[in-house]
Amino acid sequence: MSLSAGIVGASGYMGAELLRLLAGHPEIDVVYASGESNAGARIADLYPSLTSAYGDRTLAAFDAEAVAGLDVVFCALPHGESQKQMAAITAAARHVVDVGADFRLPADVYEQWYGEAHQAPELLDEFSYGMVELYRADITGRPHVANPGCYPTASSIALAPFMSAGWIEPTGIVVNAMSGVSGRGRGLSTISLYSEANENAMAYGLMTHRHTAEIEQALTHVAPPAGAPVQVLFTPHLVPMNRGIVATCTARPAVSGLTTARLLDRLREAWAGEPFVIVGENPPQAKAALASNAVHVTARYDARTGTVLALAAEDNLVKGGSGQAVQNANLLLGLPETCGLSAIGIMP
Amino acid sequence: MSLSAGIVGASGYMGAELLRLLAGHPEIDVVYASGESNAGARIADLYPSLTSAYGDRTLAAFDAEAVAGLDVVFCALPHGESQKQMAAITAAARHVVDVGADFRLPADVYEQWYGEAHQAPELLDEFSYGMVELYRADITGRPHVANPGCYPTASSIALAPFMSAGWIEPTGIVVNAMSGVSGRGRGLSTISLYSEANENAMAYGLMTHRHTAEIEQALTHVAPPAGAPVQVLFTPHLVPMNRGIVATCTARPAVSGLTTARLLDRLREAWAGEPFVIVGENPPQAKAALASNAVHVTARYDARTGTVLALAAEDNLVKGGSGQAVQNANLLLGLPETCGLSAIGIMP
Amino acid sequence: MSLSAGIVGASGYMGAELLRLLAGHPEIDVVYASGESNAGARIADLYPSLTSAYGDRTLAAFDAEAVAGLDVVFCALPHGESQKQMAAITAAARHVVDVGADFRLPADVYEQWYGEAHQAPELLDEFSYGMVELYRADITGRPHVANPGCYPTASSIALAPFMSAGWIEPTGIVVNAMSGVSGRGRGLSTISLYSEANENAMAYGLMTHRHTAEIEQALTHVAPPAGAPVQVLFTPHLVPMNRGIVATCTARPAVSGLTTARLLDRLREAWAGEPFVIVGENPPQAKAALASNAVHVTARYDARTGTVLALAAEDNLVKGGSGQAVQNANLLLGLPETCGLSAIGIMP
Amino acid sequence: MSLSAGIVGASGYMGAELLRLLAGHPEIDVVYASGESNAGARIADLYPSLTSAYGDRTLAAFDAEAVAGLDVVFCALPHGESQKQMAAITAAARHVVDVGADFRLPADVYEQWYGEAHQAPELLDEFSYGMVELYRADITGRPHVANPGCYPTASSIALAPFMSAGWIEPTGIVVNAMSGVSGRGRGLSTISLYSEANENAMAYGLMTHRHTAEIEQALTHVAPPAGAPVQVLFTPHLVPMNRGIVATCTARPAVSGLTTARLLDRLREAWAGEPFVIVGENPPQAKAALASNAVHVTARYDARTGTVLALAAEDNLVKGGSGQAVQNANLLLGLPETCGLSAIGIMP
Repeated sequence: MSLSAGIVGASGYMGAELLRLLAGHPEIDVVYASGESNAGARIADLYPSLTSAYGDRTLAAFDAEAVAGLDVVFCALPHGESQKQMAAITAAARHVVDVGADFRLPADVYEQWYGEAHQAPELLDEFSYGMVELYRADITGRPHVANPGCYPTASSIALAPFMSAGWIEPTGIVVNAMSGVSGRGRGLSTISLYSEANENAMAYGLMTHRHTAEIEQALTHVAPPAGAPVQVLFTPHLVPMNRGIVATCTARPAVSGLTTARLLDRLREAWAGEPFVIVGENPPQAKAALASNAVHVTARYDARTGTVLALAAEDNLVKGGSGQAVQNANLLLGLPETCGLSAIGIMP
Repeated sequence: MSLSAGIVGASGYMGAELLRLLAGHPEIDVVYASGESNAGARIADLYPSLTSAYGDRTLAAFDAEAVAGLDVVFCALPHGESQKQMAAITAAARHVVDVGADFRLPADVYEQWYGEAHQAPELLDEFSYGMVELYRADITGRPHVANPGCYPTASSIALAPFMSAGWIEPTGIVVNAMSGVSGRGRGLSTISLYSEANENAMAYGLMTHRHTAEIEQALTHVAPPAGAPVQVLFTPHLVPMNRGIVATCTARPAVSGLTTARLLDRLREAWAGEPFVIVGENPPQAKAALASNAVHVTARYDARTGTVLALAAEDNLVKGGSGQAVQNANLLLGLPETCGLSAIGIMP
Repeated sequence: MSLSAGIVGASGYMGAELLRLLAGHPEIDVVYASGESNAGARIADLYPSLTSAYGDRTLAAFDAEAVAGLDVVFCALPHGESQKQMAAITAAARHVVDVGADFRLPADVYEQWYGEAHQAPELLDEFSYGMVELYRADITGRPHVANPGCYPTASSIALAPFMSAGWIEPTGIVVNAMSGVSGRGRGLSTISLYSEANENAMAYGLMTHRHTAEIEQALTHVAPPAGAPVQVLFTPHLVPMNRGIVATCTARPAVSGLTTARLLDRLREAWAGEPFVIVGENPPQAKAALASNAVHVTARYDARTGTVLALAAEDNLVKGGSGQAVQNANLLLGLPETCGLSAIGIMP
Repeated sequence: MSLSAGIVGASGYMGAELLRLLAGHPEIDVVYASGESNAGARIADLYPSLTSAYGDRTLAAFDAEAVAGLDVVFCALPHGESQKQMAAITAAARHVVDVGADFRLPADVYEQWYGEAHQAPELLDEFSYGMVELYRADITGRPHVANPGCYPTASSIALAPFMSAGWIEPTGIVVNAMSGVSGRGRGLSTISLYSEANENAMAYGLMTHRHTAEIEQALTHVAPPAGAPVQVLFTPHLVPMNRGIVATCTARPAVSGLTTARLLDRLREAWAGEPFVIVGENPPQAKAALASNAVHVTARYDARTGTVLALAAEDNLVKGGSGQAVQNANLLLGLPETCGLSAIGIMP
């Protein structure tokens, strides 16, 4: 028995990573893959790494009828595009996992951070927010999933156990995160050039990065009911590596008596049984998660300054993207959640 | 049914890659792993990427009795060490795949290139030279395998089809290859430091790199019987990437009438059916093979200068090391040769 | 007219950068260079980049008598070593610029962060803390200089103007910084290996990095007199580049009415006339300062969360090390402060 | 006294490197800089590294009248563009150094390699081929200079001493070279993206790279008069670093009795007194020349295979581009050849 999948927008890095992961998935077959600007191109020419899996297969131009009846469609379109195509796709396919940003936030929050009205608000209710470890029940209760952003996944996995326990204040949270350049996608821009990004590091999107809204949403979701809305100052940084995110989060304690040992115990308790969350004592390294679906987390309590410090590392294209998308698809399709996914990274 | 494996020298990069590949191998279980200088250390502390697979397992100190009865032992010891331990290991285990350099060459050639007499020449006959695509019959005919070097694998796969066809001269062959820094292993040396290797590129081992002997051996192995011994000038280069080898080989034509089309046809014919050799028309990229067991090859005939140009790319730790070692183990154990291995690379 | 300089500990990266900068300095000649573990080695063999400047010169073994009468001695010894040699050096040479960490902090603070009693507390008073832009008057008033750490320089230049204006609270300050791997020096360690640091990013030294004390010292130095001692949670990160530091600092406002425009004006006013501080509106890039003595800074006021955000970028080996050391030497020797230094970086 | 310079095409990497080098040149002032697609942009916004040198200066749109009377104009336009503008520029300015490829080859050779007829063949005679160490007399004898390509400079400096001595055959020469990604310029292309070039290495331009013609031209220029035209198979490789070229060249001996010692002596003799050629015994490293105008060279004779091996390393944007352009401008203007240039590299 094999389930059928389509990938809409397969030519970008998220799409290519879906092609890679699904090529090794024992229960899901990719029967359709489109890539608007690369329609007609051989997958193997776009990504020679995929030659052995896809041979002479080419990308199609997008056609909603072609996804009719598919068990799951992964949508990896640029921001704004999903909204336009989604009504046709959800009408045609059994399940959709949208890897883009269009269905992650309520319409009003979307408008606030994206600066434009949502074009398909009537569909939002069909989409759960697919941060699996925090929204699992909701995910299986809706037909479609909005796969979370890369930064929100790492940050929320690091901080949620302390927020849900009521141990940290909902305001004053600072998240600094470093991302590899693949997070910018395969689109052409000066800042993405090798000669610009290499031997360089820089903050970007100061105060306005749209993932801020997702981090606040996820932490508010787990926060004690009576609390104020969670507020986060999020500063992303571009660092010279292909893949990987490391999030370094600080928060003010809401209770007394915190220690590093208690924080680590809380992480272990919160994430016990989670196949893709690895709690450790050392600062998590991006490389530990390379090409895997794992998130590595740790925490410290700095008694000197009275600060909770929580850190997480992941691969932005896997747990921060296409891997979590497959994890969500597994949930939607009733497969074991780990099917086709690994928590083993590539070192060195 | 599960076969038992041991890894002797599991703390280096080749050992760690064996741990990674075998963690995903459906038929082989790692029941023993030693690492002399790291005996007692948790695998997960040495390689946090392996945490989910090995949990709290630690490396043992080496003990030949511990490998008694194992179906296969992978030996990933530094050059010179295998010779000392091998009699005990081959006496104890069913099969050995030696990832190091000690059993790849006849004793006289070994002495010529390594500058010292071989310490266990009586064992050499039990070892085939495990360059699978060129020595498959020999491999299944002996109990143990000497896994080839990283550079020889790429170079030989690129050139062998032309040598075996009698299309290139056995002398005047020039192989220039670029390798990622992981080829130097996890040992400490100034040249392996990030700040030295990064933003740098350099040739090394001029005229004396020991892999020269392996390339000559493999090409002589396939050369027409009446020919002169193959002679290669091999110049390796260190380039700033973790993994990957690209070999650029030139040879003089021994026949007239060569064209690029004929060379490509010859590659396709020679490697038809090989699951891990991918013949393409574009110059092979290191990244296409990243973390996979594939070798990508192409060729050109430069009519202007009268030169055959053959190129290959692989991951030095996989097809150029631990991946080919698993491929050899599969052969020895009667498993499908591709078991636990993939030809899909990680891009980007 | 030419002034004479010695470099004690010239074989490490800080020493080599001093050799590079002083080779282009119009008023200072390097007449002595020692390197304990590399005594006798040609400078050009250790750093082929310096061949044209130093030809066949070799490093000496350290000998305090050899620096007698020199106008300035740069000490680039590992932490702990300076303390042992300094009495002899200060007795012999006119001025000392200690690039290491031994004379930057009062004895009690030193003991608190370094976990051992200071071995030469009687010398501390002869050393100013050489963060030029904040301590210029003090520097010219003492014979010797303790050159600041790399992280403290970037962080303090970013935050000091707001602290000195009384605009930010002395507690709750969070400094996250990313550094290139050269900050770890040329010493051998697994974490400094190319294959470990490349395609990786990680926090380290959580809560205990010794530069914390320097940042707090520098900000307390400029803080309004009645304020509480400044307290900083500093988290350094290792990112895959050779050189460069980017510091991302957050602080709580101590006054109302802050805006990004006011913060930028304050930076411009505070650093007007400083040849090596460049105030800009964009997030500063590490690469902009590469191989130069510049610090690039900017700031934002995030009205949504009520946070002051200040960022700085520098080359850790120049403004964060040997460049600032030359700047200090210029001050001590009565030369123009910019002599032999440039604020122009290397891009790409 | 100060000489006036203009830079036409200042927004690319070659132009930016000219801006950097000339900012530190004691005798030449940049009084004009244009950048067609970036006209109106602040130099400091395009290259924040240049902020301290150029402040609020902006790039002009190109206007031939604006360069009238300038002592030297550096042309850094894309291939093909120089041909169109050059008549106007040479009519207006005293001297031109064309950094692009348009005036390096005779019209027939140009057409052969560039696949199109030259648009301004009547100007070719005014341009010398500016490979300084091989064409110095010719350079001072003509008004303008065609600055050589990056690969030809390194390759020719490595091989010319052996060719001019008649020690190597004019055919059978193989040049493999590795280049950093800045050689591709600041233009947008997928292959230049960080995520593509990083952790990758590949050959490109197989058999057809246009620099082949320049290498052959330079070596033929120095070859003994009676010899056949020099023929080179040149294969360039892209490796993940910003700057740097390493060329590895092999040639067949034309005389007997060669040894490594004789080759090294020949290099030392040929390049004695050259301020920017550094002959060494170790394989040259790209990093040794980083940001400097030096070329590092060495050689070996491989008696086993009968092959001359010659290697060179340089910074592709300096000696392989803008640095050599300044060296040429110095020659044209009667300044010391080393003015404003350094042979000291940046390590680490």
